[in-house]
Amino acid sequence: MMARRGGRPATIVDSAPIASPAMLWCEDALPADAAHLVGTKAQGLFAMYQAGLPVPPFFVVTTAAAEHPIPSRGLEPEVQVEIRRGLQRLEEHTGRSLGDERNPLLLAVRCSAEDAPAGLLPSVQNLGMSPRVAQRLLARTADDRFVFDCYRRLIAQHGRLVHDIDPIHFERDLKAELDNRGLTTETDLDGWAMRELVRRWQGIYSIRAAVEFPNEPLVQFSQAVLAALKAGEQPRAMALRHNAAGPLPVAVIVQAMVFGNRATDSLTGVACTRDPNTGEDALRGEFIPVAQGADVAAGRLPPAPITELAKRSPASLQSLQDLRHGLEKHFGDAQEVQFTLEQGQAWVLHSRPAGRSAEAAVRIAVEMAEARLISRDQAIQRIDPHSLETILHARFDTRDRPEAVARGYAASPGAAVGTLAFTAADAMQRTSRGQSVILVRRETDATDVIGMQQCEGILTSTGGMTSHAAVVARGMGRCCVAGAGDLEIDEQRRIVKVGRYELGEEDIVSIDGTTGEVYVGEVRRIEAETTPWLITLLQWADEARRSSKHSIGVYANADTPDDARLALRLGAEGVGLCRTEHMFFAPRRIMLMRKMILAGRDDTATRQAALEALLPYQRQDFVAIFREMAGKSVVIRLLDPPLHEFLPHGQEDQKEIARELGMTQREVRRRIEQLHEVNPMLGHRGCRIAVSFPEILQMQVRAIVAAAIDCIGKGYDVRPKIMVPLTISREEMRLMHDLVQHAAEQAMRAAGVMVEYQLGTMIETPRAALVAGSLAEYAQFFSFGTNDLTQTAMAISRDDAATFMGSYQEMGLVGVDPFRSVDQEGVGELIRMAIERGRAARSDLECGVCGEHAGDPDSIAFFLKAKVSYISCSPMRLPIARLAAAQAMLLRAP
Amino acid sequence: MMARRGGRPATIVDSAPIASPAMLWCEDALPADAAHLVGTKAQGLFAMYQAGLPVPPFFVVTTAAAEHPIPSRGLEPEVQVEIRRGLQRLEEHTGRSLGDERNPLLLAVRCSAEDAPAGLLPSVQNLGMSPRVAQRLLARTADDRFVFDCYRRLIAQHGRLVHDIDPIHFERDLKAELDNRGLTTETDLDGWAMRELVRRWQGIYSIRAAVEFPNEPLVQFSQAVLAALKAGEQPRAMALRHNAAGPLPVAVIVQAMVFGNRATDSLTGVACTRDPNTGEDALRGEFIPVAQGADVAAGRLPPAPITELAKRSPASLQSLQDLRHGLEKHFGDAQEVQFTLEQGQAWVLHSRPAGRSAEAAVRIAVEMAEARLISRDQAIQRIDPHSLETILHARFDTRDRPEAVARGYAASPGAAVGTLAFTAADAMQRTSRGQSVILVRRETDATDVIGMQQCEGILTSTGGMTSHAAVVARGMGRCCVAGAGDLEIDEQRRIVKVGRYELGEEDIVSIDGTTGEVYVGEVRRIEAETTPWLITLLQWADEARRSSKHSIGVYANADTPDDARLALRLGAEGVGLCRTEHMFFAPRRIMLMRKMILAGRDDTATRQAALEALLPYQRQDFVAIFREMAGKSVVIRLLDPPLHEFLPHGQEDQKEIARELGMTQREVRRRIEQLHEVNPMLGHRGCRIAVSFPEILQMQVRAIVAAAIDCIGKGYDVRPKIMVPLTISREEMRLMHDLVQHAAEQAMRAAGVMVEYQLGTMIETPRAALVAGSLAEYAQFFSFGTNDLTQTAMAISRDDAATFMGSYQEMGLVGVDPFRSVDQEGVGELIRMAIERGRAARSDLECGVCGEHAGDPDSIAFFLKAKVSYISCSPMRLPIARLAAAQAMLLRAP
Repeated sequence: MMARRGGRPATIVDSAPIASPAMLWCEDALPADAAHLVGTKAQGLFAMYQAGLPVPPFFVVTTAAAEHPIPSRGLEPEVQVEIRRGLQRLEEHTGRSLGDERNPLLLAVRCSAEDAPAGLLPSVQNLGMSPRVAQRLLARTADDRFVFDCYRRLIAQHGRLVHDIDPIHFERDLKAELDNRGLTTETDLDGWAMRELVRRWQGIYSIRAAVEFPNEPLVQFSQAVLAALKAGEQPRAMALRHNAAGPLPVAVIVQAMVFGNRATDSLTGVACTRDPNTGEDALRGEFIPVAQGADVAAGRLPPAPITELAKRSPASLQSLQDLRHGLEKHFGDAQEVQFTLEQGQAWVLHSRPAGRSAEAAVRIAVEMAEARLISRDQAIQRIDPHSLETILHARFDTRDRPEAVARGYAASPGAAVGTLAFTAADAMQRTSRGQSVILVRRETDATDVIGMQQCEGILTSTGGMTSHAAVVARGMGRCCVAGAGDLEIDEQRRIVKVGRYELGEEDIVSIDGTTGEVYVGEVRRIEAETTPWLITLLQWADEARRSSKHSIGVYANADTPDDARLALRLGAEGVGLCRTEHMFFAPRRIMLMRKMILAGRDDTATRQAALEALLPYQRQDFVAIFREMAGKSVVIRLLDPPLHEFLPHGQEDQKEIARELGMTQREVRRRIEQLHEVNPMLGHRGCRIAVSFPEILQMQVRAIVAAAIDCIGKGYDVRPKIMVPLTISREEMRLMHDLVQHAAEQAMRAAGVMVEYQLGTMIETPRAALVAGSLAEYAQFFSFGTNDLTQTAMAISRDDAATFMGSYQEMGLVGVDPFRSVDQEGVGELIRMAIERGRAARSDLECGVCGEHAGDPDSIAFFLKAKVSYISCSPMRLPIARLAAAQAMLLRAP
Repeated sequence: MMARRGGRPATIVDSAPIASPAMLWCEDALPADAAHLVGTKAQGLFAMYQAGLPVPPFFVVTTAAAEHPIPSRGLEPEVQVEIRRGLQRLEEHTGRSLGDERNPLLLAVRCSAEDAPAGLLPSVQNLGMSPRVAQRLLARTADDRFVFDCYRRLIAQHGRLVHDIDPIHFERDLKAELDNRGLTTETDLDGWAMRELVRRWQGIYSIRAAVEFPNEPLVQFSQAVLAALKAGEQPRAMALRHNAAGPLPVAVIVQAMVFGNRATDSLTGVACTRDPNTGEDALRGEFIPVAQGADVAAGRLPPAPITELAKRSPASLQSLQDLRHGLEKHFGDAQEVQFTLEQGQAWVLHSRPAGRSAEAAVRIAVEMAEARLISRDQAIQRIDPHSLETILHARFDTRDRPEAVARGYAASPGAAVGTLAFTAADAMQRTSRGQSVILVRRETDATDVIGMQQCEGILTSTGGMTSHAAVVARGMGRCCVAGAGDLEIDEQRRIVKVGRYELGEEDIVSIDGTTGEVYVGEVRRIEAETTPWLITLLQWADEARRSSKHSIGVYANADTPDDARLALRLGAEGVGLCRTEHMFFAPRRIMLMRKMILAGRDDTATRQAALEALLPYQRQDFVAIFREMAGKSVVIRLLDPPLHEFLPHGQEDQKEIARELGMTQREVRRRIEQLHEVNPMLGHRGCRIAVSFPEILQMQVRAIVAAAIDCIGKGYDVRPKIMVPLTISREEMRLMHDLVQHAAEQAMRAAGVMVEYQLGTMIETPRAALVAGSLAEYAQFFSFGTNDLTQTAMAISRDDAATFMGSYQEMGLVGVDPFRSVDQEGVGELIRMAIERGRAARSDLECGVCGEHAGDPDSIAFFLKAKVSYISCSPMRLPIARLAAAQAMLLRAP
């Protein structure tokens, strides 16, 4: 709620005991339904005025003043009395009067509606002008250009508001006048020319409106207020209403004029209180000298950067700086402000939170907290975690950049490299196979959205900054170059022609979403650097998160020592998922792996030999990760994917393997065929492999224990946690427990060293969630594999979803992609159930989440509510997770 | 509990106030732990004796008589006193005494243990013989062959029990004696020869046992009782204990001898009180004249069928018939009885429920209920629903049967035709594709079990009636020919050689599990006929099922009018699942279907045209089914499988389609590739197809409504229910509701006829079960697709499970195959949850089950408990479902 400062208490109209007042004076306290009653714009003016900021005095005719449609007889007499009363207060306050020939008051009349975008509803400035008032002003200011400039503006704006006269008629006449005089902008017109315009525009007015321009101030005023109230009945206003039909309720601001179009030290402009791109603590913006507010938006006159004011008028600049500090102090945030300087005095006409880049948002929040303008908690809560994706994005190395082959709009920042995918489905399929892909389309539509989420970057040949591709890509923080018109895309043949190149699905392209440039081939990227402000913000976030006893840990998924190092740098508190299968893809290892897999089902000897040869590699990997993560938990998942994933599908590769392993090629092919699965997602994988081939599990456990012993011997604090994938029953879990225990004890006995390890399981099927109580008898921790849990609970294969998810999003059947933000109603219930049942069986059961949802802010808030112990996401998403977790924690805190 | 009739109350040993008595007299009431205390065999004797059946008097030395191992000093004095007391009562009761020279008592001593199979534990007959006793018996019976036959039997049996003398030593001597005399069987030996044997066998005894045969009756007796008690300490006895280690507790029956080996009207035999193959109400069995009980089991003497007794001795037959009626009246079931006739007087030595074929079981139960020997409810509960599979199995047409190429054991009845599968995995994969398959193996093991369940029949080249294949196949009611030794199976090359044939995976084989014959090629089958008794039983079952207000309906899955007719004949109360996709596979239709599918995503016109052409076919199918099912519900599922299932995969077929549709072959191939899915189970199917292509759903709904209108016009009572597959969210369900409603109303308006239809959904994913409450807002009924629900909840693809389920069963990780009997802990909880939540939103929500579990008795019992409204299974499983449902209902009834 806005604090009310000074002034008298709110006046309620005494003649009409209605609930909402028809008029509110700028010093009145706003009632509870202020946004509806006075509109967003007026609400801001009340706040600023009452906070002592330099807002010209005003009153508001509220939305309660009229029922729509307003009858032809006009407003009710009681309302007219109220309006007159408002005017009277304004006259008393300013010491001037509307139409008074000695001390005339000029007014601005503006519309204000709830959530209406600026500039959409009309306004009138300089109301109260008449030939006599003009004479008086001329006498007082000796500035004929100023006086007649005001007059001609009034005629045009009044015509538009009251009689809907198209401004083009006045603009054409202005253009003709300029052409006659050989001038380019209206700033160059002198008082004489302005006086001519006033004369001619009254003629245009009377022709277009079929009535004379009313040179009687009170008539101008009454007509304008009524027309402004009626503006909500126009179709374009009604279109603004989101969930309702009928006229838009419009309030009317009646405000004393301040003049940016006087000859000395007067100007009008728009500024941000901090740099919207970098967040630097400095005023940024533009101004137009000798002009009125509407001119900045109209764009007819060339603006100058605010920095120029330092040379032109240091006093004016100081006045603006004071305004800036006042605004920030009041709003506690960087503001975008519409201002006017009248003879060196700064006035604010409108102010709203400044739009800003993600980097700027972080810097602003941190520096404002450091300056005690806001609290640290406020700083944390102010940043949209999704926006960090942009900051964390890579960019291209400028030293190593070839000639761009095309250029488009820099639609969404970042630097992306990948092969070309011509359809969203294709992009999804290939990314699911681990490929980096650039989705290239003439333009995108709703059916492409899921595919866009998956790929590295998006490149389109048509559309601009607000095209579907651009808007959606920015929303996702995905790199995008839009409307690169030089591309000729043949989606049928899957070919792009650009310059001398003809690129197909195999070709690599690099796109720079920050510059809009497109390169053929791979351009070297520089990983994003975290800024000092981001580091500070995340430190604060960690402190906030850890301050509660219902805290949530933030771990990383890391398969390699490099991953682990990066994760530590980005704030990981442990490794929540170390996938061991990736360790088997290095050249020498993959051959051993294949040897093991291709051994006959009963040929345990060959399998054992291959495994023995693999053991040292695994141990060595674990040693490196344990050392990096000394003192922190490392959750190692035993082999999970189906074995056929390790086998080659090309003829040549099969031939080579056959030779290498001394098998016939036919035998190799046959074994590969045998391993083929109809639904690999629901097939022979996870702990099912360990049931069939316990020797694989045993080798991995021995490698883990041996690595731990090695590290312990060198003084490292090692905390290995062994995780079994895809368990669905108590019997499986018991068997896994026994196998792991046996292998671990054997290895410990052999070395004569004890290793404390924990054993846990993934919960990644609905059945596992349901029987969590019995799994917890043998499992010391759970980790939710939310990707697979989503796939099985919803029966949606992520690999195949692209073909139908498009229609689903188009038809509004799916709000958020369930693979992006956890499906709280379905999957979420399984998670809650599993945690509850698991902890009923084992009260200190740790429950983590290691699916991709662990990096999604909305999901994180849900996980916190569900009492998840830790989330584990990819290292690059750690900052997002840390921030989102802190925010969720702050929201929950009392 | 067994009723105790007549006699004095149970005597408890007064000298030792222990909980369990060491000796029980045949008139004593049995304590609660009778089975353990006296063993199964003795328990039966007590029951029969006390029911007034002709059982020779006896007493039992109970398992409480000795602690194991029995110390070398023998039994405790108190126990010896008890045994002497038992003997004394037997002597008083019979008026004879052991060793008494005037009136000698001869005894049988037999072991009795809980659940021990007959014949495993040793026994001794004719105890109490000595030279003087023999003299006395000779004098009394004038039957020297009888007396010395008893004597020589005693020596051999006593030697085996007390000194573990291998019977072979005595048998060899007998053989030599017969050879000497040129005789073939011992029946032909005269008294003189028997006397010789007695002499010589005492010699064999003393040599083998290193002590003389004890010609003192009391010594014979004491030694035998002690040895019998000790029999439980032998390894083969200990092996009988299921879940415990240590000696088997053995009780000892001491019973007065009756003699089947006397010269006149004496015999011994085994009979069933009803025909064990047909169930006919007639005595069936075999006897050996002039023989003692052990001879029938030993198989040394050729038995005669009991029918022969009608000629030989009508009085003896009458005596047996009286025994038969007495037994059935007492036990209320057909019995297999061991009996002895001594001079025309029938005695029963052992009786147990008769083993019987499935047909016989049904006839026996029905006829016994009709004769009021048991109640109808008892009749219903007596039949194992699984066993009906055998009755319902087809058999080969005898007129159309070629020469068998091989013959094996008729291991499990039925007639199966299919192509050869050489591995269980292969069998599963091919059956999942709808192929009929005969699994051919040298022998089967646990890893084959799941594959065996899937295939039509099992054929092995080794092993007999008790081989793994035979036992498991019988348990499943799956047709099996075992040990067809003429087959040469090369599992590596996947070839079977038999006679002049070399058969591969493509070849069709027919096997007759009722005769053991194997044929090359397809032999015509005759579908199983239901017997009048089965029809009666099922009528009773339906009455029992419907008598409760918590009844459960039994519907059928029927896709065609033929299916519907069969279903009605087998008792369906409606169609619970009519799959519309099968209707599209007929030649002309499939081409239209393919045309529709191959149309480009945006080419709605082509799709619409193809659909319009398909509509009349669909309508026509529905008309025929509605007529068959007049007055009954017909649940029609909208198109479910992924579209690629309708497309051809062969080059030739693709070429033809391209020609037919005027596309290039490459285009066809590309579209097929586009439709390929990584995990089709979790892909673009079910209502997801309707979301992408609503025109398909609309065509189907219009066809259903048009068919209903057609039938209504002809006076049929039509009850269509439209079922949406794979729904997972409220939004989907709402859209489906709106689409169906719109299409239905259009069709009704066009015809000017109203059709009352219901709209429901499959619940076949975990998410659907979880959000059942919101689905029920739009769905008027649910139908659980338990197959898919099992696949998704457990993340097990049925198509791929064969590769690992073998190991799971081997290691005891899976009890019952979850695709055979519903996983109550996991999937079952989802079902319960969905019903509860669905009915909370819509109290009259119908909840059916249409997965294959609907035909599984254990699952049916679960569904009843879960308050499922109806189950719907394949027509051939209807009898099983009806019976199982009735049994479950009776079990639940108070």
